[in-house]
Amino acid sequence: MSDLVKVAVDAMGGDYAPVEPVKGAVDAVNENPRVQVALVGKPDVISSELEKYTYPKDRIEIIPATEVIETGEPPVKAIRQKKDSSIVVGMNLIRHGQADAIVSSGSTGAVLVGGQTIVGRIKGVERPPLAPLIPTKDGVSLLIDCGANVDARPSHLVQFAMMGSIYMEHVMGVKKPRVAIVNIGVEEEKGNALVKETYPLLKANPLINFVGSIEAREIPQGAADVIVCEAFVGNVILKLYEGVGATLIAKVKEGMMTSLRSKIGALLVKPALKETLKSFDASQYGGAPLLGLKGLVVKTHGNSRANEFKNSILQCITFTEQQINQKVQEHLLEYDSREVQQDGI
Amino acid sequence: MSDLVKVAVDAMGGDYAPVEPVKGAVDAVNENPRVQVALVGKPDVISSELEKYTYPKDRIEIIPATEVIETGEPPVKAIRQKKDSSIVVGMNLIRHGQADAIVSSGSTGAVLVGGQTIVGRIKGVERPPLAPLIPTKDGVSLLIDCGANVDARPSHLVQFAMMGSIYMEHVMGVKKPRVAIVNIGVEEEKGNALVKETYPLLKANPLINFVGSIEAREIPQGAADVIVCEAFVGNVILKLYEGVGATLIAKVKEGMMTSLRSKIGALLVKPALKETLKSFDASQYGGAPLLGLKGLVVKTHGNSRANEFKNSILQCITFTEQQINQKVQEHLLEYDSREVQQDGI
Repeated sequence: MSDLVKVAVDAMGGDYAPVEPVKGAVDAVNENPRVQVALVGKPDVISSELEKYTYPKDRIEIIPATEVIETGEPPVKAIRQKKDSSIVVGMNLIRHGQADAIVSSGSTGAVLVGGQTIVGRIKGVERPPLAPLIPTKDGVSLLIDCGANVDARPSHLVQFAMMGSIYMEHVMGVKKPRVAIVNIGVEEEKGNALVKETYPLLKANPLINFVGSIEAREIPQGAADVIVCEAFVGNVILKLYEGVGATLIAKVKEGMMTSLRSKIGALLVKPALKETLKSFDASQYGGAPLLGLKGLVVKTHGNSRANEFKNSILQCITFTEQQINQKVQEHLLEYDSREVQQDGI
Repeated sequence: MSDLVKVAVDAMGGDYAPVEPVKGAVDAVNENPRVQVALVGKPDVISSELEKYTYPKDRIEIIPATEVIETGEPPVKAIRQKKDSSIVVGMNLIRHGQADAIVSSGSTGAVLVGGQTIVGRIKGVERPPLAPLIPTKDGVSLLIDCGANVDARPSHLVQFAMMGSIYMEHVMGVKKPRVAIVNIGVEEEKGNALVKETYPLLKANPLINFVGSIEAREIPQGAADVIVCEAFVGNVILKLYEGVGATLIAKVKEGMMTSLRSKIGALLVKPALKETLKSFDASQYGGAPLLGLKGLVVKTHGNSRANEFKNSILQCITFTEQQINQKVQEHLLEYDSREVQQDGI
């Protein structure tokens, strides 16, 4: 793999654009010689940011885009009308083979719509899921789907399980990733209509290592590598993870400030605590890939800093080099042909 | 209110039965002179536990029940066949006017089924929701429904919002409780089919103080007093709350043990930290009421200790004295008649 992986970065998206995406791009090319970045957005704004840094000039270029899609805009309309926005221009680079991937911290809706309509789905993929990595006690798990497709059908969830397995195995290096479906009990007969219909399909699928239902309580323990759920539930899990974490850490800090004794203690524990809690910080793992598209689309948090941009860009290297999309297509074809064979019996 | 409130306690349910429910009952009668407890279960087992304590003998009685419903049993069958189980006998006490409420740490399924079939629904209530209090940054919120009715319809959620409001106002003393619906964005057009249909109904309901959508991230911040959601989502929220909390606290402890410096610090912060984190501990607030029944059914955690039993028993006093069930019935009737009037225009 001597070819460079070319990643488009939406320099105008997110709360801290252009400062943080530009810094993340610079850090990425400085850290890894195999990455090339196309910063998409207003050229003057990007140039004046880039001037602050030292980096290999041949591996960062600026692709002009004069418009910006704001977070509040209706996504379908925005993608259709703002042809010269950083998201649309960036995604067209993938469509026309000029980039392998795009990283954007902009409007989630616009990234999802743009991914589907501009980058396009891999043949056979019904719905592309958004799949962030979430921190667990000793590692990470992939939460899939996390907001792309509400009111999904069982066949969608089966595809999510397959795509999630491929991602965890080939991008994250987890052998035979354990796949579980989020449920309100561990027994097979538990759950809502969607889970009850999906469970036997996952159980019967020979291409995944299905370990059964998982209760939300077990997710932070790392009880499965691929956590399959419908997008509404996945979104609630992702956001509650952040919410409970933030509130609890604030409580811990508050508790440490209640007496002179505890304040002194806080000074002593601070460095060690910071290090440990860092491992429970989602931004360490880069953004969420939108899987099943003819190119890699990575959505980072709206409040991403340079570190998350950098990690998201680097994540694109493994994804591209491992030919994840090709593997997804092969798996879906294999699964389809098995279904046809079974039907034929 | 000079009459005693009579609470049946399932002495055989939960991981630590009979020790913890019996101790919780003793603590409750010792703490509050207005409560009378009927301990339901095997008389010899209960008596030998009771002998350990000093308490007003006239306020704890033993009601014999020879059978026990285990957690794994199919609930409908168990309630139908084990007529002499502690849950069935205890619920029959309410049915026959011999108790106002029951507290059980036994099988959730059996408690839900027994509540509906033995205690019975208040006229007009479509589905009785399970509604635990969850800790927030500075207080508690009511999460409703949390596991009783999967695949609910919009009309159910509207009733949950009304019952939850009455509970928070009259049991917890929150004036004009803020009601929000769990969603994956705050805009009115966001959500799955259920939320989109329910939103306008909640908005139009004059009997509740609807504040719109709430993202899961905001729940631990205490952004609403009554958090309305479908049971599958509610169950995921409740369990993830516990799961993230437990994992994060374990991480904090682990972080504090990494160096000599941090170990010394840990000793100093420990007392203050313990006090602060206690306020984020769900067991402080008692069990989850199953609302909308002709009596109060309170489900406590399977791993409840005496403190949770005691708090759940004491919670029954306010509930009964405030005539919550009567208020629920009045509200539902008022809402119904408004609907009829509107239809008539």
